[in-house]
Amino acid sequence: MEQPAIGDAFGEMIRDAYAVRTGIGPRPLAGGRLPRPVIEVIERDDGLINGAPADHYLDEPDAWQPHDHRALRLCRGHVLDIGAGAGRIALELQRRGMAVTGLDTSPGAIEVARRRGLRDTVLSTVDGYARAAARYDTFLLLGNNLGLLEGPERAPVFLAALARLANPGARIVAQGADPYGTRDPVHVSYHERNRARGRLGGQLRLRLRYRLVASDWFDYLNCSVEELDELLRGTGWHLDAVDRKDRPYYLAVMERDR
Amino acid sequence: MEQPAIGDAFGEMIRDAYAVRTGIGPRPLAGGRLPRPVIEVIERDDGLINGAPADHYLDEPDAWQPHDHRALRLCRGHVLDIGAGAGRIALELQRRGMAVTGLDTSPGAIEVARRRGLRDTVLSTVDGYARAAARYDTFLLLGNNLGLLEGPERAPVFLAALARLANPGARIVAQGADPYGTRDPVHVSYHERNRARGRLGGQLRLRLRYRLVASDWFDYLNCSVEELDELLRGTGWHLDAVDRKDRPYYLAVMERDR
Repeated sequence: MEQPAIGDAFGEMIRDAYAVRTGIGPRPLAGGRLPRPVIEVIERDDGLINGAPADHYLDEPDAWQPHDHRALRLCRGHVLDIGAGAGRIALELQRRGMAVTGLDTSPGAIEVARRRGLRDTVLSTVDGYARAAARYDTFLLLGNNLGLLEGPERAPVFLAALARLANPGARIVAQGADPYGTRDPVHVSYHERNRARGRLGGQLRLRLRYRLVASDWFDYLNCSVEELDELLRGTGWHLDAVDRKDRPYYLAVMERDR
Repeated sequence: MEQPAIGDAFGEMIRDAYAVRTGIGPRPLAGGRLPRPVIEVIERDDGLINGAPADHYLDEPDAWQPHDHRALRLCRGHVLDIGAGAGRIALELQRRGMAVTGLDTSPGAIEVARRRGLRDTVLSTVDGYARAAARYDTFLLLGNNLGLLEGPERAPVFLAALARLANPGARIVAQGADPYGTRDPVHVSYHERNRARGRLGGQLRLRLRYRLVASDWFDYLNCSVEELDELLRGTGWHLDAVDRKDRPYYLAVMERDR
């Protein structure tokens, strides 16, 4: 059995989801004729596999979760949307006349965001982009993208990159997911397995697969607010406010220490 | 990275799809709270992975494809529904007062079919069941289940088992999918790769994955009507009629040679 090729799985998926939604361009068909929904497949390192419809990456604001709308009200000044994907959030900020840059590591996602009209895009990691002269007032991590902190090793490095990109008074507005409310034995035992290996319970090790392509394996962090607070220590950032109205999801606002 | 356990992936998926549809029993939740759609994940031996919502296995007749309805009009006498799954088709035949047995190799699928009210079920391969004394007038292979012919090696064995289970004048009513209408390079090159290995172009090698469980790898045949006609030679069965109204899907009616 052949292994999938390593590549821009997320971008290929977003390209197809965009083609299906707009009806423009080649897209996967069942039996060569019937459109089929684009599904994101995520493998976890314990062998778990999950699929979820990918269409939500293209959702217009009327289909968003309530916390996405509340997050936008927390933005001010020049916004860097990190993990901007197909530009769902950044496009809305742009429509509202705000200065916004969409950053993503996926060429396919950036391509779709630009085709959808997002003007200011960056294809880079935050580390790479932190060497540029750009400065921001708000860093936005929506769609569970607090997960990009990855874990205790990566989080301080990631946060230091944001500090370099920060104007005075800058804030991070991030949406996280507390993984510990579940009683599903598949997840409870995964959390235990992680802790036994010295990892945070919700420090997921994942890869994306789409058709013939897989991403590399990467860490993605689902953590509690308490764990986030702990991760921030010594980074020069602190929790300023937390909105837990949509549990298990939450919005965390982080600011620079004075 | 751990490999998935080998088990009744299809059955576990059907159990969850049933729990999600009825709202009864434990089912996968996002973040421990929000219901998530049940997705069937299929891997192909070239590394292709596809996901598709599993809910259609539970569809009531008003949501069926038109050829499913036409297939039921071709049934007569005692019906063996092969690969009955969650009992979608068999339950409707039972409602109409027909004698119908639902056969499947998945314990989880049979369990759900019984919970949904299907009275006559068999947990077996057709080969195993052909050793029983039961006899049928119609063998039903819907939901692409002509694919259970697998390929040139398996087809005569499968058809011989049906011959042993057949009353005089019995027919097979099977729904197939012609795979050769596609121009998708992912599929076109897979067909070529198969032929280079002495297989039929659409002789798929697949496994199902659902959460922590995978099926064994199996062959599943998408073939043209012409290939089917060829496969039937010497088996004692022949094509009696073909309904191609819903291309690339078709209904094939096969009868015993006289």
